[in-house]
Amino acid sequence: MLNHLFSRVWPGLALGVLLAFGAQAQPDPLPSWNDGAARQAIVAFVDAITTPENPSFVPPAERVATFDQDGTLWVEHPMYSQVMYVLESVPGLVKAKPELAEVAPYSTVLEILKGDRAAMAKLTLPDLEKLAMATLTDMSVETFSAEAKQWLAKATDPRWNKPYTELTYLPMQEVLQYLRANGFKTYIVTGGGQDFVRQYSESVYGIPPEQVVGSAVGMKYGYAEDGKPFLTKEPKLLVNDNNAGKPEAIQLMIGRQPIIAFGNSTGDQQMLEYTAAGSGKRLSLLVLHDDEKREYAYGPAQGLPDTKVGTFTQALYNEAEKHGWIVISMKSDWKKVFAFE
Amino acid sequence: MLNHLFSRVWPGLALGVLLAFGAQAQPDPLPSWNDGAARQAIVAFVDAITTPENPSFVPPAERVATFDQDGTLWVEHPMYSQVMYVLESVPGLVKAKPELAEVAPYSTVLEILKGDRAAMAKLTLPDLEKLAMATLTDMSVETFSAEAKQWLAKATDPRWNKPYTELTYLPMQEVLQYLRANGFKTYIVTGGGQDFVRQYSESVYGIPPEQVVGSAVGMKYGYAEDGKPFLTKEPKLLVNDNNAGKPEAIQLMIGRQPIIAFGNSTGDQQMLEYTAAGSGKRLSLLVLHDDEKREYAYGPAQGLPDTKVGTFTQALYNEAEKHGWIVISMKSDWKKVFAFE
Repeated sequence: MLNHLFSRVWPGLALGVLLAFGAQAQPDPLPSWNDGAARQAIVAFVDAITTPENPSFVPPAERVATFDQDGTLWVEHPMYSQVMYVLESVPGLVKAKPELAEVAPYSTVLEILKGDRAAMAKLTLPDLEKLAMATLTDMSVETFSAEAKQWLAKATDPRWNKPYTELTYLPMQEVLQYLRANGFKTYIVTGGGQDFVRQYSESVYGIPPEQVVGSAVGMKYGYAEDGKPFLTKEPKLLVNDNNAGKPEAIQLMIGRQPIIAFGNSTGDQQMLEYTAAGSGKRLSLLVLHDDEKREYAYGPAQGLPDTKVGTFTQALYNEAEKHGWIVISMKSDWKKVFAFE
Repeated sequence: MLNHLFSRVWPGLALGVLLAFGAQAQPDPLPSWNDGAARQAIVAFVDAITTPENPSFVPPAERVATFDQDGTLWVEHPMYSQVMYVLESVPGLVKAKPELAEVAPYSTVLEILKGDRAAMAKLTLPDLEKLAMATLTDMSVETFSAEAKQWLAKATDPRWNKPYTELTYLPMQEVLQYLRANGFKTYIVTGGGQDFVRQYSESVYGIPPEQVVGSAVGMKYGYAEDGKPFLTKEPKLLVNDNNAGKPEAIQLMIGRQPIIAFGNSTGDQQMLEYTAAGSGKRLSLLVLHDDEKREYAYGPAQGLPDTKVGTFTQALYNEAEKHGWIVISMKSDWKKVFAFE
C-alpha cells in the first residue's frame, strides 16, 4: 500500500522538482552583458511589451526590431568589409579590361592592394561610388551572389586574422536571439548593399534575406539566349539607406514603425528618432566604440579624432542625451565582445 | 491482474484510436475546390516540396508563395477598387481647391460620380496617373492610412452591395491558409499601391504589411512643427510593380525567388515565368475569369472583347500552355466563389 501510494505520489513529486529546477535553470538570455543601465533597459523594455497586463503590451505582429549592421552588429573599423570587397574585386575587373590599370581610381586601388595603404587617402567618395557601381552592378543577381559568397569564404580581417563573418559582437547576437525568442521580427537596416548583406545574414545572424533592408540598385528583368529569365543589377542607385533614407526604406520595405532600434553612427540618427517617435513604449540605442583594447575606440565622444566610418559625433551624443536614447558602452556594458575571445 | 494489465494497455489503445481518428478527421484544406487538374496540381506540389524524402523537398525558409491581388485574390471587375478610391477622393480634393472643379480630369471625375458612367471613357491612363498622384501622395503616411481605412470601411461594390474587402475568392483564401499551414510565407505582389493594400491585407488575407509588395512612391522624411518626425508620400513613382516590375520588386523586397505564384493577367506573366524558371519543382498558375454567373467572364480566351482591366489575353493563354502553367477555371474548378454565397 505504501509502495502503491508512493508510486502515485512520486511522479507528481518528480514533476514538481523538475519544474522548480526548470525555472531556476532558465538560462540568462544575455550572458555577455554586464548588469548595467543598457542591459536593464533592454530587459525592462522586453518585459513590458510582452506582458499582456502591462499597458505597454505590443501584439507579436507589431514587434519590429531594426539593427544597423556595420559598427552595430559587427566590426566596421578600419574599413567596412564591403569596401574591402569592392577594392579586392578591382583586379578581376582590370583583368577583363586591362586598359583600366592605368586609369584612376582603378590604378589607385591597385597601389593600395600592393600594400600602399597611404594611397587610400587619394580615394574620394565619388571614387568609391564609381568603384562600387563597377564591381557590384552590370551583372546578374546569380553572378553577384556567387562572387560575393566566394569572397566572403576566403577574405579575412588583418587584425584578428578571421573571416569578417566571425567578427560579430556576441552581446548583439544575444540581443537578436532574445528578441526573437520574445516574438520579435529582427531586421537589418544597413547603409551597406542589401544584396551583399543578404548573402550571409541568415547564416551569420539568423536573419533571412527578406528581413534585410539596405542600399539597393535598380533591377532589370531580361532573358538569356535560351529564353531563361534573369535579373541584372543596374548601375543606378534606387534606395540610399542612410540617414533619412533609413526610415524611408523601413516604410517601403517593412511598412511598420520599429519599436526598438540599434545603431552606432550619425547615419542611424533618423532611424532612432523615427523609432522613438511612435506611440507607446519605444527604445532607441547606440553602440559606443570605446574599447581600444578588445575592439576599437573612435569618435569625438572619446575626444578622439573623427573617422571616415562609424561617426558617433558629439552632436549624436547630445541627441541621445536629449531623447533618452540608451548609449551602450562596449567597454563597460559587454563582458565579452566576440564569441572567439 | 487482468485489471492491472488492462490499465496498462488501455491508455496505449486509447492513444492509438485517437491518432487514427485524428488522421481520418483531418479536414479537407481546400473544401471549395472541385477535384480537377488545378486542385490536384496544388496538392501534389505541396506534398512534394514538404516531404523530406522527396527529391523536390524545399526547406521551410525557402517556401515563398506570391499572389497577384486584383483578379487573383479578389474581384477587379468592372474597376479596381483602388481606382474607385482615387475617383471618390476627388470631391475632397476639389473641396480643398475649388478651382479644380472646372479642370479636366477632375471635372470628368465629378461627372462620373454624378452617374455619367459613359464619361469614364474620357479618362486616359495619364489622367488616371495624374489623379492617383493627386489623391494618394503629398500627404503623410498617417493621413493616407486614416483616409484609406475610412473609405474601405464604407465603400461598397454596386453589384453585391458589400464592402470590397468581402469580395475575396474563398478558394484562394483556402490556398493562402493551406500554404501557410505548410510552412510557406505568403506574399501579395500587386500592381496596385503597396500602401493601399497594406491597410487591409492583414485583416482580409492574414498577410502582414511587410509581406505586401506593390507599386510604391518615394518617401520623404521630415519633422512637424513640434519636432516629431514623419514620412510624406511623394508624387514620384519609385516601384512600378507590373510586368517585368514584378520580378524586379520581388528581388528588391524579398530577395528570394518564389516557388509558387498565382496571377490572372498579362501584368503577372513575368512573375510566373520567373517563378517557373528557378531550379527544382515550381508551380505557376493563372486564374481564368470564365464565370459570368457567379463573378464575371472576360478576356479574349473566351472569345470576349479585351477589357481595360485584368487582361488574360490569348497570348498569355498560349504562354501558359507552352510552359505548363496551370489555368484555374473559376467556373469548373471552384465549388464556391465567395464565402457569403
